[in-house]
Amino acid sequence: MNTRDNGGRDVADWWKTAIIDMQPGRIAIRGREIQDLIGTLSFPQMIWLSVMGRVPSDGEAALLEAALVAAVDHGPQAPSIAAARMAATCGVGLNNAMATGLNMLGDVHGGAGEQAVMVYTRIADELDRGTALEAATGRVLDEWRAKHGKFIPGFGHRFHKPEDPRAPRLLGLVDEQAAAGTVKGRFAHIGRAVQTHLNAERGKPVPMNIDGATAVIFAELGCPPPVARGLFCLSRSVGILAHAWEQTEQGGRNKGPTPPGYRWTFEEPQGG
Amino acid sequence: MNTRDNGGRDVADWWKTAIIDMQPGRIAIRGREIQDLIGTLSFPQMIWLSVMGRVPSDGEAALLEAALVAAVDHGPQAPSIAAARMAATCGVGLNNAMATGLNMLGDVHGGAGEQAVMVYTRIADELDRGTALEAATGRVLDEWRAKHGKFIPGFGHRFHKPEDPRAPRLLGLVDEQAAAGTVKGRFAHIGRAVQTHLNAERGKPVPMNIDGATAVIFAELGCPPPVARGLFCLSRSVGILAHAWEQTEQGGRNKGPTPPGYRWTFEEPQGG
Amino acid sequence: MNTRDNGGRDVADWWKTAIIDMQPGRIAIRGREIQDLIGTLSFPQMIWLSVMGRVPSDGEAALLEAALVAAVDHGPQAPSIAAARMAATCGVGLNNAMATGLNMLGDVHGGAGEQAVMVYTRIADELDRGTALEAATGRVLDEWRAKHGKFIPGFGHRFHKPEDPRAPRLLGLVDEQAAAGTVKGRFAHIGRAVQTHLNAERGKPVPMNIDGATAVIFAELGCPPPVARGLFCLSRSVGILAHAWEQTEQGGRNKGPTPPGYRWTFEEPQGG
Amino acid sequence: MNTRDNGGRDVADWWKTAIIDMQPGRIAIRGREIQDLIGTLSFPQMIWLSVMGRVPSDGEAALLEAALVAAVDHGPQAPSIAAARMAATCGVGLNNAMATGLNMLGDVHGGAGEQAVMVYTRIADELDRGTALEAATGRVLDEWRAKHGKFIPGFGHRFHKPEDPRAPRLLGLVDEQAAAGTVKGRFAHIGRAVQTHLNAERGKPVPMNIDGATAVIFAELGCPPPVARGLFCLSRSVGILAHAWEQTEQGGRNKGPTPPGYRWTFEEPQGG
Repeated sequence: MNTRDNGGRDVADWWKTAIIDMQPGRIAIRGREIQDLIGTLSFPQMIWLSVMGRVPSDGEAALLEAALVAAVDHGPQAPSIAAARMAATCGVGLNNAMATGLNMLGDVHGGAGEQAVMVYTRIADELDRGTALEAATGRVLDEWRAKHGKFIPGFGHRFHKPEDPRAPRLLGLVDEQAAAGTVKGRFAHIGRAVQTHLNAERGKPVPMNIDGATAVIFAELGCPPPVARGLFCLSRSVGILAHAWEQTEQGGRNKGPTPPGYRWTFEEPQGG
Repeated sequence: MNTRDNGGRDVADWWKTAIIDMQPGRIAIRGREIQDLIGTLSFPQMIWLSVMGRVPSDGEAALLEAALVAAVDHGPQAPSIAAARMAATCGVGLNNAMATGLNMLGDVHGGAGEQAVMVYTRIADELDRGTALEAATGRVLDEWRAKHGKFIPGFGHRFHKPEDPRAPRLLGLVDEQAAAGTVKGRFAHIGRAVQTHLNAERGKPVPMNIDGATAVIFAELGCPPPVARGLFCLSRSVGILAHAWEQTEQGGRNKGPTPPGYRWTFEEPQGG
Repeated sequence: MNTRDNGGRDVADWWKTAIIDMQPGRIAIRGREIQDLIGTLSFPQMIWLSVMGRVPSDGEAALLEAALVAAVDHGPQAPSIAAARMAATCGVGLNNAMATGLNMLGDVHGGAGEQAVMVYTRIADELDRGTALEAATGRVLDEWRAKHGKFIPGFGHRFHKPEDPRAPRLLGLVDEQAAAGTVKGRFAHIGRAVQTHLNAERGKPVPMNIDGATAVIFAELGCPPPVARGLFCLSRSVGILAHAWEQTEQGGRNKGPTPPGYRWTFEEPQGG
Repeated sequence: MNTRDNGGRDVADWWKTAIIDMQPGRIAIRGREIQDLIGTLSFPQMIWLSVMGRVPSDGEAALLEAALVAAVDHGPQAPSIAAARMAATCGVGLNNAMATGLNMLGDVHGGAGEQAVMVYTRIADELDRGTALEAATGRVLDEWRAKHGKFIPGFGHRFHKPEDPRAPRLLGLVDEQAAAGTVKGRFAHIGRAVQTHLNAERGKPVPMNIDGATAVIFAELGCPPPVARGLFCLSRSVGILAHAWEQTEQGGRNKGPTPPGYRWTFEEPQGG
């Protein structure tokens, strides 16, 4: 067995964090005493302080709050919501039902906001190199499609036509904060450039959706792409909880995806 | 195959919800258009509307926000935080690392707030029957211990001595709102009665902890016990995200619980 | 920081296990070198050695294998299977899709075998006290229903009528091993007594189902009730994997519970 | 609401599978009646039938069984095992503790076998194009490293030196089956070529490990790379169950990663 003669310092160092410090009777988050934060910081401010290490300005916090409010739910057709509702009838705790839904927010179900932040920041990098906005947008979108396939994250919607009702409202709030000087507005500009480019390509509107709009906010706030996924998860956890609790109250046991009478289609094996 | 000749109504009814209504271009949460909620409701207000079906008063929302802020993190010694950090080094998505932590908030790790709400509401039921507060408190605590064992949820703390720094602050905020008339203050009163009773039993302070204090708030807001667990989960998800992201930035591969040199103790089988 | 001057022994002891011992170049499971087990033990034998600490007899292993084979799948109407299939379209790893399904095997969806083992062993305890079989059966079933509600775990089936095709086969295999003397057959006897009792109560057959039959096997093998759940989980993980993989090959993105055209029913709030 | 006038066929078709067919009283897996499989097929045979759609030959089944036995556990330093043990003290069900561990078997913790199958099959593709084995091996390894970084999956081990005790035994079993003609032995040949190449590159042994060896077996059996991950998950679920159950019996509440006295190291923020 390997031991170190350092009084256990290596064991403590194995779990190293700048987020929280604790002694008996004391908790500090990012160096600030917890009792000074309770009743002082809003929940979005606390989220940003915990995750990103600083308290956002009021304008930034307002945008973060809007993004968190906007994405809480999209109904029981979403696999994360359906799975959490089913889990609530299977005899597990509410935290397990919530975790079940959260676990489904992978690259396809939960990743579009993260991916849109990546697209926007690539365009911003191009702008920083002196490329004009239209050319930068075209280049980054072509690169994205070459690597990832035809879907541009953050635009268009299978269901919401003519447009996702959440996106214009969110963009409008970004415009307000940009006008007030609390954010630069650079990524609203970039997001609209993507919008314009896609409309021209398709010959019809391909409107920004919730993921493209929240990504504008997350990019304005300087949030790394994976954290955009994490923040979407915090938001969607609200809908997941609401639905899991509602299903708990409705009852049911081992709820499947369709009414029990609808069995599935069995595919006969090929050949003899 | 069973089919119904009702145009698919039974399939739609299988997923019945009062939380969200959607048509192309329209999303409404509890009957309110989403674009009217974004930038209007705070995140705690949106949480309460989604989960409980109504927008809380400003005073209620302030208490809910305080409870959500207070419980976000308790450091990497908490299994939920440690597991999420380890998951972040195993090559899964950030949502999967978050779900891993959330899945651990079971009856023992995440259930104390829910259980404290149950204790408080049982005492309230006794009061409603005309029992005096001291007798009601004693009776309910004895019943609880007979059924569940010696731990009274919400009081005492393995680590924080002389007291959990979050609890007095939260109780103070409840007192303020009670004084302002936005909540009744009944459960702060009950929580303190439990406190007094336990102190007398043990002959030394057994101070209210984070779970006992947030439970006062959740009970004041009329929150069913399992929803108290759900709200604690929303709060703790913030710390889980923060730690999972920090670990992602720190790096590491397949991070185990202790530095690799410390292997585990093998227990020889008994007998020959 | 608390440290111990014991060369890290306390850190190693924190993770104490009798299951596995390792040094560089050496792995031993329950004291047996891994390379001596590979290609020597069957997978069911390895399962029992790992979980229960001993290699089962050939007859015991045959019954365990039959129980593991019998419970692998019950189709996409089972929430665990449906959720795993949906997860496979959400952009998570196959292990995450499998974990999603496994997480749903709670007390209601995955607990019946564990609960049936509890019922059978209670009856056995009564027999050990000298109670006659019929009286013991009646007493234990009445106690169970008083505590847990009307469902007796392991008997009847929502879907399989006249009977669950897996149960008679499993019971027959137990009879064979009892005849050969490799198991006592006590719990087959008890299971049949429950069957007889329920038939008489209802006035019609309430046949033993997969959970009641595998529970006979698990009880014959001396398996604690929670381990019965764990073994059911190992079995059902096979179907979960098969379905998650098939869905991966079929494709799809964000697969919901019903065809997209079937939206859910929105429940209008009561009142004005 | 979109409905189809087809008697619900579209709802049944939404869940289409070739794995299982069911009517009341009948269950068939891949077209074979379940009661004919119970007590007839081994668990590995049932796994392959369910997942891959055919019953493997006896020789193939022996190799699959060896691979499943070999990978069941690697001790509490593995994050999947540690997390499952911690979960078992948090008041969740045993299935939830198992799911917690399984959820951690991502690309880094559980992906090496899958990735090794990818490397082996790329080399086989090169051989099919007429490239010599040594050149094919070098080319594929260089491509892999260019894309994925310096680790070649399946070879070397942080802990087991001079070698992983499971790999030679597994390779030896493949050699036996190849000699008997039940498998071609092509991938044992390829695996050894990778071994030779890496040894020469590093100037010291870089022995095949458990993932490289099970990958030889999975590739011999024609298993797609993600299914190799799934089979590793089935195997590791055994150790996860064993450890979660052992921890349950040992007791504890909210078990953290290190003894409670070892708190973590707090990193002061930089600057003022």
